[in-house]
Amino acid sequence: MSTAVLAVLNSPALDGTAAPTAFRLADPADPQVTVHDLGATRGDGVFETLGVVGGRAQAVDGHLARLARSAAMLELPEPDLDAWRETLIAVAERLPADREGFVKLVYTRGPEGSGIPTGWATGAVAPDHTEARTRGIGVVVLDRGLPHDVTATAPWLLQGAKTLSYALNMAALREARRRDADDALFVSGDGFLLEGATSTLLLKRGDRLVTPSTSLGILPGTTQADAFRSARAEGMTTSYEVLPRTALDDADGLWLLSSVRLAAPIRTLDGTDRPVDEAFTARLNAALLARRD
Amino acid sequence: MSTAVLAVLNSPALDGTAAPTAFRLADPADPQVTVHDLGATRGDGVFETLGVVGGRAQAVDGHLARLARSAAMLELPEPDLDAWRETLIAVAERLPADREGFVKLVYTRGPEGSGIPTGWATGAVAPDHTEARTRGIGVVVLDRGLPHDVTATAPWLLQGAKTLSYALNMAALREARRRDADDALFVSGDGFLLEGATSTLLLKRGDRLVTPSTSLGILPGTTQADAFRSARAEGMTTSYEVLPRTALDDADGLWLLSSVRLAAPIRTLDGTDRPVDEAFTARLNAALLARRD
Repeated sequence: MSTAVLAVLNSPALDGTAAPTAFRLADPADPQVTVHDLGATRGDGVFETLGVVGGRAQAVDGHLARLARSAAMLELPEPDLDAWRETLIAVAERLPADREGFVKLVYTRGPEGSGIPTGWATGAVAPDHTEARTRGIGVVVLDRGLPHDVTATAPWLLQGAKTLSYALNMAALREARRRDADDALFVSGDGFLLEGATSTLLLKRGDRLVTPSTSLGILPGTTQADAFRSARAEGMTTSYEVLPRTALDDADGLWLLSSVRLAAPIRTLDGTDRPVDEAFTARLNAALLARRD
Repeated sequence: MSTAVLAVLNSPALDGTAAPTAFRLADPADPQVTVHDLGATRGDGVFETLGVVGGRAQAVDGHLARLARSAAMLELPEPDLDAWRETLIAVAERLPADREGFVKLVYTRGPEGSGIPTGWATGAVAPDHTEARTRGIGVVVLDRGLPHDVTATAPWLLQGAKTLSYALNMAALREARRRDADDALFVSGDGFLLEGATSTLLLKRGDRLVTPSTSLGILPGTTQADAFRSARAEGMTTSYEVLPRTALDDADGLWLLSSVRLAAPIRTLDGTDRPVDEAFTARLNAALLARRD
């Protein structure tokens, strides 16, 4: 991956030492992380990925709020959102304005025993997702193993936090590719729809858009929240629901939403063709691309 | 944490470029990992921790075999175990010979898109675990959420691989401390005994030592395997079993075993006193400390 821009935060947490500047620019090809950083040794940290269009990061408030929410779930020091905002905007501005890009924020517990968290933001040009946004993607349904009410019964499992412990999400994507698909959709062990491996599920039923409830231990989708706003502006209704797996069969259309690929219609589900609403998908992606922070 | 020794592997995978030497020594205070290393951004890698006694790493074969097993489960390139062995021995030799120590091996998928994995070994003096090994530890039982047969039904969840995605294990330890305990023991969502957050469960029933079966999606314990050998040499029998949670109540003694703390008897379980067999615990720890590679 050619990471074009890197900014390391001087003081990523609110209780950190006051820093005269929010960040320092660095060469992403140079090592920046020590071998005792708990991000690198325990996946002990959180992250966010924001889309960048025309040099401007999208859905900044939503991503920063989710970064703080994930950090709180991991009992990390409260992030200094002003410093993160200044840093991510500076990274986005340094990307080519005529290409889509992304900024990734990483916030770790820092070197073991230090009590000082680590934070950085990287920016790069995004891959071309035109085909996924128009022709659509093949998706397989995979068991996430956990029951649907796990956040209430076992909060230490950190479901609903966007942590750096993403090895299983990566394994789910490898399993999808092994089954000749592009992406994976998780269902709970007791049969409720959850989220994609790195995305939010959106279902359309007539003039209603539906997404699984965050009470199921899934991430609140930043792109999905903006898709809901856009749909309501068209006169549609939107809702968060606890949905059995059979809700997939009843839907008029299915999408996986994420910050960089945006709305990818599900063209096949476990190898079976699904209807793709090209006109609605195009309007949705146009609205998502038109967002400003 | 004062990490005294760091060795970075020049070619940690078998299919890597041939390197004239296995490792280079480096300063652990200097950054060594780039911000696009998938170990640091996705917890996408595996690790091992070995005890070091008298400058010699313990259970080397067992730990290297488990490193390779975990790497295979993550579909990482096959590690060059000869290079890892040479590196970890060199790190262990550089630790103070009159103190207990540990060596930690970290093997990541490497910088995103590079296809070149990253590997390093750190060594340090261990904390003093005398109190845990003699007086014992307080343990709480926490739900792991997944069913006991998850490795068969959902291998993409990577249960039984020692991955860098350990945020939930760290959260379980925080939950234990919140409940005034030292450690956490996981049970499956359907009520079977699994493993500690960073250790293996050992139960004693008369002259039999029992540990939960690795068919339950838990790590094969290297220290537990050596404890079994030691017990059989005393004339005891040993077995791997699928155990309901109620097996805790029927046991004469309970321990959490790990490579550095070794055998820690469980003194309280969810706040209730448990019998501690001091004589057997002392023999077990003496045998574990006496191991040579």
